[in-house]
Amino acid sequence: VRRTIITVLAGGVGGARFLRGLSRRTDPDRLAIIGNTGDDEEFFGLHVAPDLDTVLYTLTGQADPDRGWGLAGETFACLGALGRLGEPTWFQLGDRDLATHLWRTERLRAGWPLSRVTRDLGRHHGLRPALLPMTDDRVRTFVHTEHGRLAFQSYLVRRRGRGRVRRIEIAGASTARPAPGVLDVLARSRAIVIAPSNPLVSVGPILAVPAIRRAIARRRAPSAAICPLVGGRPIRGPLHRMLRGLGLEVSPRGVARLYAGLVDLFVLDAADARWAPAVHALGMRVLVTDTVMHSPAHAGRLAAAVLRTLGVSPA
Amino acid sequence: VRRTIITVLAGGVGGARFLRGLSRRTDPDRLAIIGNTGDDEEFFGLHVAPDLDTVLYTLTGQADPDRGWGLAGETFACLGALGRLGEPTWFQLGDRDLATHLWRTERLRAGWPLSRVTRDLGRHHGLRPALLPMTDDRVRTFVHTEHGRLAFQSYLVRRRGRGRVRRIEIAGASTARPAPGVLDVLARSRAIVIAPSNPLVSVGPILAVPAIRRAIARRRAPSAAICPLVGGRPIRGPLHRMLRGLGLEVSPRGVARLYAGLVDLFVLDAADARWAPAVHALGMRVLVTDTVMHSPAHAGRLAAAVLRTLGVSPA
Repeated sequence: VRRTIITVLAGGVGGARFLRGLSRRTDPDRLAIIGNTGDDEEFFGLHVAPDLDTVLYTLTGQADPDRGWGLAGETFACLGALGRLGEPTWFQLGDRDLATHLWRTERLRAGWPLSRVTRDLGRHHGLRPALLPMTDDRVRTFVHTEHGRLAFQSYLVRRRGRGRVRRIEIAGASTARPAPGVLDVLARSRAIVIAPSNPLVSVGPILAVPAIRRAIARRRAPSAAICPLVGGRPIRGPLHRMLRGLGLEVSPRGVARLYAGLVDLFVLDAADARWAPAVHALGMRVLVTDTVMHSPAHAGRLAAAVLRTLGVSPA
Repeated sequence: VRRTIITVLAGGVGGARFLRGLSRRTDPDRLAIIGNTGDDEEFFGLHVAPDLDTVLYTLTGQADPDRGWGLAGETFACLGALGRLGEPTWFQLGDRDLATHLWRTERLRAGWPLSRVTRDLGRHHGLRPALLPMTDDRVRTFVHTEHGRLAFQSYLVRRRGRGRVRRIEIAGASTARPAPGVLDVLARSRAIVIAPSNPLVSVGPILAVPAIRRAIARRRAPSAAICPLVGGRPIRGPLHRMLRGLGLEVSPRGVARLYAGLVDLFVLDAADARWAPAVHALGMRVLVTDTVMHSPAHAGRLAAAVLRTLGVSPA
């Protein structure tokens, strides 16, 4: 008998920190993570998967605790040398992180699907949850601003999330198929949780894969989303500016609307308790609790509260 | 009017050290180097050109003074991480060296010929001589031993040059065309010098390109070769074992025979003065001098002696 599981849709840092909390409160071998690949990018011919790697490094205790991305104790000798060769260095690729990208790229070039590369990479690092890229197909997020159509990393890192956002394009999503295992874990889940990641560019690409959105819309397991806005601002990143640019409400309700029909429970930070009635009016139950993950222990308490409220006993 | 030049055929460390001496004694802007690409190899999907890079790093003062290859003060964080992913790490790719290979590989994938990549790389590093790969075509050296057919780096580095050499195969050479500029610099040379590199696997692949061998055989400029054997042994590397394995004489005469018809002057170390008559009998003039390059100053004296004996006044 296949064991039931908890499935989390996760982007980068916020998602990874939530997952670290969750994996303290439930059996990590029974966690499945559907990761965003819309912000994957090629640098120096290497396939970089920032969200998958942030989850991998965080859950295996290797992430830099301050930056949130990349490896702790990382060095940047190669990037410095590339800079001296006239190459752009705004995307900070560390020396040890490069090994991940070299390893991944070589296997992708040999014809492995990203899901297999990701699974094997996880095994090498001792990752216990199943980390599944949302798709093996090519999906890329572009942010249209007054500077033009920017690949996501160019928008977020090079331009530091500045510029008025006019449109978000998830190129390739409409024809993308879920990676092997994705529909299976969704079907077998006891609970589906959308991590406190950016709903437009972290969770959005995952939900833009038609079969994934459909599977979640038709779910039998209860589902929850944790609001990534606290007091009208994201903990990090430009979500508030993106929402504003797109003419959406910069509020928990604005986020909750993006998850309408997909989520049974919406989790608000205590600072946003006043939004509970408005979110509830969208047809979701509302949990108000502390959502700011100052530490793994905070994240663990948040995860436990979410599971409890969904009626799921941690394994 | 195009200026006349001195052209050197060079392999790795020995060639690079001779060139460093030569560039102290003549105008480096009037030096041309034809580099061996037979020992190029792909590691982790990257095009590594060990001989070209050893020349580049040595002539720009960046080479590790003890190892002879690689960059001084290099770190190996990426390689260590690749090792933890289960990858072989016998080829020591440093973090800054990786930048060279990433840069090269990206351009080769974009369709640049190796000669253009090498020229631009040289410019970025401030290299003054013209460094020309012998060919833009794919030539690969294989060493056949009792362990089978080994790619050159596998033979030299992984197997440490052990095993009885049965055959040396320069795959692709017979149909390879000289890289742009190679025939031109040979035609314009005031002197052609074969550096004290391994005649079988460093200089051999260069001379295995038919049009290069032909151009040198029909040269108008005087030519010289410096014997890489001193007292019956190479300064480094397995040349003596290779010669023996192939049934060739392990002596300066054994080396000189490989250059018959291509060289007017053969340079012997003082320790091998007794071989002068035998080499002379092959139809070459012989210069006996100190050939061991303990320091750049030694190398400079050797280079000056060679040019003087060829009747070429340093620029």
